[in-house]
Amino acid sequence: MTETDRVTYTHAFARHLPPARGREEVTRRYNFGTGHNDPEAVPVEDFVAAAASVLRREGKSLAIYGLGGSSLGYKGLREVVSDKLRRHRGMDVGIDNILVTSGSLQGMDLVNALLLDPGDTVIVEQFTYTSALSKLKWLGVEALPAPLDEGGIDMAALAALLETLQAQGKRAKYIYTIPTIQNPTGSILSLERRRQLIALSRRYDTPIFEDECYADLIWAGGAPPALYAMAPDRVIHIGSFSKTLAPALRLGYLVAPWEALGQILALKSDGGTGALDQMLAGEYFRAHFDEHVARLTGLLKAKLDLLVEAIDREFGTLATVQVPLGGLYAWVRFPPSIDARRLAQEAGKAGIAINAGPDWAAVPEEGAHSIRLCFGLVSASDIKEGIAELARVCHETFGLPERSGNRANAGTR
Amino acid sequence: MTETDRVTYTHAFARHLPPARGREEVTRRYNFGTGHNDPEAVPVEDFVAAAASVLRREGKSLAIYGLGGSSLGYKGLREVVSDKLRRHRGMDVGIDNILVTSGSLQGMDLVNALLLDPGDTVIVEQFTYTSALSKLKWLGVEALPAPLDEGGIDMAALAALLETLQAQGKRAKYIYTIPTIQNPTGSILSLERRRQLIALSRRYDTPIFEDECYADLIWAGGAPPALYAMAPDRVIHIGSFSKTLAPALRLGYLVAPWEALGQILALKSDGGTGALDQMLAGEYFRAHFDEHVARLTGLLKAKLDLLVEAIDREFGTLATVQVPLGGLYAWVRFPPSIDARRLAQEAGKAGIAINAGPDWAAVPEEGAHSIRLCFGLVSASDIKEGIAELARVCHETFGLPERSGNRANAGTR
Repeated sequence: MTETDRVTYTHAFARHLPPARGREEVTRRYNFGTGHNDPEAVPVEDFVAAAASVLRREGKSLAIYGLGGSSLGYKGLREVVSDKLRRHRGMDVGIDNILVTSGSLQGMDLVNALLLDPGDTVIVEQFTYTSALSKLKWLGVEALPAPLDEGGIDMAALAALLETLQAQGKRAKYIYTIPTIQNPTGSILSLERRRQLIALSRRYDTPIFEDECYADLIWAGGAPPALYAMAPDRVIHIGSFSKTLAPALRLGYLVAPWEALGQILALKSDGGTGALDQMLAGEYFRAHFDEHVARLTGLLKAKLDLLVEAIDREFGTLATVQVPLGGLYAWVRFPPSIDARRLAQEAGKAGIAINAGPDWAAVPEEGAHSIRLCFGLVSASDIKEGIAELARVCHETFGLPERSGNRANAGTR
Repeated sequence: MTETDRVTYTHAFARHLPPARGREEVTRRYNFGTGHNDPEAVPVEDFVAAAASVLRREGKSLAIYGLGGSSLGYKGLREVVSDKLRRHRGMDVGIDNILVTSGSLQGMDLVNALLLDPGDTVIVEQFTYTSALSKLKWLGVEALPAPLDEGGIDMAALAALLETLQAQGKRAKYIYTIPTIQNPTGSILSLERRRQLIALSRRYDTPIFEDECYADLIWAGGAPPALYAMAPDRVIHIGSFSKTLAPALRLGYLVAPWEALGQILALKSDGGTGALDQMLAGEYFRAHFDEHVARLTGLLKAKLDLLVEAIDREFGTLATVQVPLGGLYAWVRFPPSIDARRLAQEAGKAGIAINAGPDWAAVPEEGAHSIRLCFGLVSASDIKEGIAELARVCHETFGLPERSGNRANAGTR
């Protein structure tokens, strides 16, 4: 650090701070590492038209905090959310129970602020969103894993965990779940399991924190109703437009009955969420939601197919892909000889960004041989090249996959 | 609350929460109560053009978190900030030392997260931004007042306060100041006092938290350089586009050397600030900053003149206006017979929103007979009518001002 980078008041820094960020931003040639979306799916000309129309109609209200309306957010966007939740998620929710948030990350912060004190315990899915885990760690909250299988939370195992906690005189503050396109495993919880989960929530008096960031991006066949639709008194529901529209627009939403939402609103002390992001998303999606999501989903599914094909071709039997039922991620398991963290490090050096399983696991060791691959941003050709490169790195690091054999086998898989 | 408003998990709420919000949003006929801006100053057609141009050029990057660029924010907006700080505030700051924030409220949260632990002490101006005070209270931090006069902080009094703290073996974590168009008093700290403030900061090893949300809105003659320009190693600087552009766009910025900024960036865990708000502000202000601010300032000054005239006419000698040198607020003092909190309550019932001084005072009693009036949103005719109404309410509540006398005197003032 140069002299002009320095300050004279580091002695005044707070006692507990996360590691400082470095100046360098790392960009990798093959980016399977973050839930970006497909640049080709951004409807630029439709955005231009939507911006013009909404600005001409309501632009003057930008002079007023919250556009002079409700502090819950831009009405046009809350109407879009209410409509899509009713039609796609079975939720009968009026706009007065919807709070627009600055991404679902803020929704998560608000739920945590509502419910958590340091020293509390929560239940999370065995593999789950890395930022949920890091926020809990930062808050001094213990996150206990509920085991997952290919269908989501194993309800017998969850019941046993809740029973054990009760026997210890403890009660989890919430059960955090991503029931519809689980992150990172891509599963959808069945209706029967949803009923069981709600019954467990009632029996052990533990609320459910439902994260449906990916629920709009399902390949086919839809999904059972949201947990919130089945038990609004027991569930806080969050969602996002990062995945259906664009993550640089920081737009999410939180749904709850007023007894919780009025309290959450008092915790949202940011002067509102960016108005133009809200206005554009509201205006565009008012006319185009289903059409846009159908197009995007088709595009993502085609990329997933290419990805699965490439993994098969390059890794053969070494890799087991849990093929997701929607969303942006594939969860890939390797045998114990492959250390995921080391693979991610070596891949990074070779210009390939991937996610190491331990960061996506409540008990890091349980993700030691898994990786998460995001296929939203990467192009078709980068998927092929990037996975081939990843296999090469894997081979050079661990001696596996055996190169020629898998290549020869590719045609027969 | 109806049955469907209820939840079954209030037992799981965190131990300390702010008061819940009510369902009703109050809007008042005459709104002198919040730092809104003038709807007529929103350049709607220029916004439409800027949105079209920036979306066509960079819209596809919305698919990527942070637009695929630096996590400090949209480069085009940081360039605008760097340029205006250099030209108007004497600050030589590159874009790598500027973090775009979701309003200056987030900037404030980040500075507090960097520097404060519960039980800490800070120094604030005797009268100051109400949200700064409420955030400190919520964090469990003691805010000690530095006395103000018409020129800002009284440096002899501040020196005495710092000396007293040192004698007690305590050290304030920061000195929070709004040196250029102070909120709520509208003063500008002189160059000489700025030098004294920095010397005190060095002598007592206490950093300065400089809030320049209003520094671009000065009637005439400019202002001395920002404190940051004079001592970057001792100052964290925040600013905002809420006042120069539009508060519903949630855009502020934070300036610091990397040793602090890298740490602050690690605390900004929101996935970025809304991209479209940033892109529009960057695109519009790249071409129009000085021209827009000059027009807006002229408009605000004209409203202030009307407001001062109306207060003179309606309140006569009962009210003393500290005429601000820029910005959006007038600070009005009454004699002890007028209780500001009661006046604000009665005014509210009559459809007039004003700010009661105690909420803008570190020691609430010191603001007991003062009010803050915002003149950004109210129209010329509403200023006249609203102040006349306020005088009527004041008369009905306190018997003052004596109605006919002041009206008769109006022409002669």
